[in-house]
Amino acid sequence: MATATATGTRLDLYRQIARQLRADSIRSSTAAGSGHPTSSLSAADLMAVLLSGHLRYDWSKPKDPANDHLIFSKGHASPLVYAIFRAAGVIDDAELLTFRKFGSPLQGHPTPILPWVDVATGSLGQGMPIAVGMALAAKRLWDAPFHIWTLVGDSESAEGSIWEGFDLGGHEVLPNVTPILDINRLGQRGPTELEWDTDAYAARIESFGWEAIVIDGHDVGAIDDALARARDASVPTAIVARTIKGKGVSFLEDKPGWHGKALSPDEAKKALAEIGDEPSRTFDTAKPEAWRPPQANSKTPVLKTYTEPVATRKAYGDALAALCVANSAVISLDAEVSNSTHADEVKKVAPERFFEMYIAEQKMVSAAVGMQVIGFRPFASTFAAFFTRAYDFIRMAAISQANIRLAGSHAGVSIGEDGPSQMALEDLAMMRAVHGSTVLYPCDGNQTAKLVAAMADRGGIVYMRTTRANTPILYKPDEEFPIGGCRVVRGGAASDKVTVIGAGITLHEAVNAADALAKEGVQVRVIDLYSLKPIDAKTVAASVNATGGRLVVVEDHWPEGGIGDAVLAALAGARVNAVRFVHLAPRKMPGSGKPAELMHAAGIDADCVARAVKELLG
Amino acid sequence: MATATATGTRLDLYRQIARQLRADSIRSSTAAGSGHPTSSLSAADLMAVLLSGHLRYDWSKPKDPANDHLIFSKGHASPLVYAIFRAAGVIDDAELLTFRKFGSPLQGHPTPILPWVDVATGSLGQGMPIAVGMALAAKRLWDAPFHIWTLVGDSESAEGSIWEGFDLGGHEVLPNVTPILDINRLGQRGPTELEWDTDAYAARIESFGWEAIVIDGHDVGAIDDALARARDASVPTAIVARTIKGKGVSFLEDKPGWHGKALSPDEAKKALAEIGDEPSRTFDTAKPEAWRPPQANSKTPVLKTYTEPVATRKAYGDALAALCVANSAVISLDAEVSNSTHADEVKKVAPERFFEMYIAEQKMVSAAVGMQVIGFRPFASTFAAFFTRAYDFIRMAAISQANIRLAGSHAGVSIGEDGPSQMALEDLAMMRAVHGSTVLYPCDGNQTAKLVAAMADRGGIVYMRTTRANTPILYKPDEEFPIGGCRVVRGGAASDKVTVIGAGITLHEAVNAADALAKEGVQVRVIDLYSLKPIDAKTVAASVNATGGRLVVVEDHWPEGGIGDAVLAALAGARVNAVRFVHLAPRKMPGSGKPAELMHAAGIDADCVARAVKELLG
Repeated sequence: MATATATGTRLDLYRQIARQLRADSIRSSTAAGSGHPTSSLSAADLMAVLLSGHLRYDWSKPKDPANDHLIFSKGHASPLVYAIFRAAGVIDDAELLTFRKFGSPLQGHPTPILPWVDVATGSLGQGMPIAVGMALAAKRLWDAPFHIWTLVGDSESAEGSIWEGFDLGGHEVLPNVTPILDINRLGQRGPTELEWDTDAYAARIESFGWEAIVIDGHDVGAIDDALARARDASVPTAIVARTIKGKGVSFLEDKPGWHGKALSPDEAKKALAEIGDEPSRTFDTAKPEAWRPPQANSKTPVLKTYTEPVATRKAYGDALAALCVANSAVISLDAEVSNSTHADEVKKVAPERFFEMYIAEQKMVSAAVGMQVIGFRPFASTFAAFFTRAYDFIRMAAISQANIRLAGSHAGVSIGEDGPSQMALEDLAMMRAVHGSTVLYPCDGNQTAKLVAAMADRGGIVYMRTTRANTPILYKPDEEFPIGGCRVVRGGAASDKVTVIGAGITLHEAVNAADALAKEGVQVRVIDLYSLKPIDAKTVAASVNATGGRLVVVEDHWPEGGIGDAVLAALAGARVNAVRFVHLAPRKMPGSGKPAELMHAAGIDADCVARAVKELLG
Repeated sequence: MATATATGTRLDLYRQIARQLRADSIRSSTAAGSGHPTSSLSAADLMAVLLSGHLRYDWSKPKDPANDHLIFSKGHASPLVYAIFRAAGVIDDAELLTFRKFGSPLQGHPTPILPWVDVATGSLGQGMPIAVGMALAAKRLWDAPFHIWTLVGDSESAEGSIWEGFDLGGHEVLPNVTPILDINRLGQRGPTELEWDTDAYAARIESFGWEAIVIDGHDVGAIDDALARARDASVPTAIVARTIKGKGVSFLEDKPGWHGKALSPDEAKKALAEIGDEPSRTFDTAKPEAWRPPQANSKTPVLKTYTEPVATRKAYGDALAALCVANSAVISLDAEVSNSTHADEVKKVAPERFFEMYIAEQKMVSAAVGMQVIGFRPFASTFAAFFTRAYDFIRMAAISQANIRLAGSHAGVSIGEDGPSQMALEDLAMMRAVHGSTVLYPCDGNQTAKLVAAMADRGGIVYMRTTRANTPILYKPDEEFPIGGCRVVRGGAASDKVTVIGAGITLHEAVNAADALAKEGVQVRVIDLYSLKPIDAKTVAASVNATGGRLVVVEDHWPEGGIGDAVLAALAGARVNAVRFVHLAPRKMPGSGKPAELMHAAGIDADCVARAVKELLG
């Protein structure tokens, strides 16, 4: 009966760890006076068995590429996350009790300020598709031995993004990721939609091409078996665990009104007595076997050069393909429009590094976040308008300290006949308002190539807006375009009367206006603001000062939050006074039409720029 | 054999209509030189049978509340939409050929500029959840006799929002809406994920609580039966139709490379010859039986008043409940956080008009859009941060000319311990950059009540940002706060030295700073900018002029796109010169902590305001 005894000992150990995870979840949240202890208690058994029986992780080397990954998609169960770190011995009791306090890395929801956290969670429905995206790159490009675990809440399964994650895992057949669904029946304000209907969860999961293992999430033996089966499975496998919110504390178990509420010190004392209050200790986690991913090659990319008009979206695709050739860490994701964004150029040179995300922008951005965790350099592309679909994911990616590159094509009214649903007119506002973001908007093929190359090495959320139409070549291939810079493309003399600022498609309108005005003897200075954020406030300010404060900004974007707002903020920051400002931007809802018709109707073509200049000059 | 003959005649009629829909789809797109004819051809049989056999719609009275609704979730099949309008006789051949031309209401994707279009589609995955949301209100509040049909593309079923729609319909048991899935196997750039695996579609649909009827989407008899079954069903029922993209034209059928491409005039001639090119004519649609929804009551709401500190989110809930009592068209939707947003106050007075959307913000906003189509006045609420999840839906709602009200609670670093994932710091930028939007940010309970009441009567996308913490009462209950106004709450004399602008939580910091400075003999003017958009540029400009151009803006939002940018744009528009501007806003990623700690760290508390004022003064 040695085996039975060994099993018994193992199960006892799991139970002991679970008790500690519960106790520490209560201790930390009670010390904080807030947090989500009951959402932690429901998953304590699941995580105890994972930690001690199945996770392969070297806690002393969180960056070891051989490590498993554990992503709490239900990020509000952060007391459990930190209790795990305490059980692993990487934080001590005193640190645990800094939970949610100012300056502590143990924030209300987990973020990668802690080295054992891959991504920030807390906006629900994100950790799971991030985990699946990570699994996709790990399997396809490395056949990596590590496994990815993600704890998913039942409430968050109402988010469509969870089903985008299941869709991806099923379609790509990813057995190296295991979502563990913590079906504790209670959401924030009451019962979840499906309560304890684990069969319904299983049916949904299976319909997306996965196997679902339904278990009692407090039966450590069943958990043990399920985790083992999931790790060894050759098909995508998820665990659906029926649990009890607040499990282990009688007055919390399955009781409404306890979501997101810490126990008072008295209540905590009672709860800890019930759980069995012992000093917390450190438990072993199995280390992974040594493994390194293939060495990434990295050369200087050989960028295509242009002499004839080309769409910047095409130049984007060309440059991305060149980057893929030069650097095996560079990857491309696209939401079923790669023949429009021209990300399909990647398929010609590195088909295995092109990831088709179908029409699911949330999935695309979360997959990109997951893939950058393990060292890839993702570029994700779709129509600029459709990045609005993923704004929550982009915002969260900034909190995750993720390095992702986003390219949005078909921006503005200048796309023409397709009409307003396809016209990004708010993307610059959206992307500027992301913490630490970079926002680029090139106007010609050669500039695009250089900026795409710069994106590969740039940290944070880096956004490029590209244009549908072919645009003339303004720059030579050997010119440089540092991020944070701008270019004076017309004028530059002390005699310039007005500064005109454009970018992308409108830069050409500004240039055409300047050339027409020059023939009439009116000298204007045209600035190509290819880098909206960071912005070259110094050059912009000096130019506006030099032209007597007269300024025209012309952009293919709603008046709010785009180039106009960026320029005004830069000028205000530079204490430039006496500005006389005309802002040309679409102000009515556009319809369909030829690009030139729509740009004229929006007041942003060369004629409108010339008229604005003349108005400013009186 | 009268019945058989009648059936035969009916099926022949369907085929004849389908031929015309195909021919007109080709004619219009070829005349336009762009568009999606092949995506229209795949669904022509489905729509012919619906139009002639099942739709109950009075084309002369598109606003008749008894009419069925037909929403093309696959909006790119607009040639088919307009071909239907031609077959119904509401547009003529000449109008049909204005497709995609400048000024024509027949835009590249359908919008409600046309009276027979309920909502704009073209961003995929939206029309279907909108239709389901409409069905929910129609069934629960009216038990309405009309039926809602929505044509869904196979590509768009990759969007999680489609599954949020199925989730809603299944959970709420809505047999009055029928999604018709056009499974034509080909997306934009190649095959769809599931190609012709109609069983996989059916399994997914059934797992979300629907019945799925799988048919050959070109067998008009099978379509006829399926539509009849769906209309009569007592459980949610969807139709999964296997179709062929480009059906009816041999050189288009199931051929790659034809997505979103018009036929050349020569190709069109060949195609029309194959279809059978006859002059287009008008076909009958059955009219609905007379029906009117119950008359909405509408009284002046009795708003709660406040004398003690209260959170504006609580005042929002109170006011919304009062509106619900006063006006039976007012409804509330919330994404599983109604005990935090305080939308749960509605449950106490009008439980049937509270719609629980669970944690699915895309579903919530699309349901709100669907419900306003049939005359309701929806208020949708969640944490402000999580409206980022629905940005694409909000952007499209503006194109849909929808009147929806959104309330985002828990904004900014001032929420405290929960950390950055829960802190809206980009919502103002996002909402300002929506066409025609209104953006409100009240600071006290009485102001909130008045502004919530104003929201009910305001058109377009109306956003209110509320605050988690209790804030002091600044205003009397009888004061008025017109949208587009602002209030001077401190100072106002010619001796004021600096203008300080805040709103919401930071207004109180500005007031505290002003009061402290006044004791030191420094008089500042404090403006409560409760209406960010429209903005009271005149008062702001006059104030900044009166204080020597010295201006401090303090906001709990990233520096980009929020109050600072709005104020600078207003000043530039008003030609206010010589501004010396200090912008107080969070610039580093916040963590957890007490609200006061985080506001101080972000540089936006009263101390920071006072310091900024002093800096400006010397």
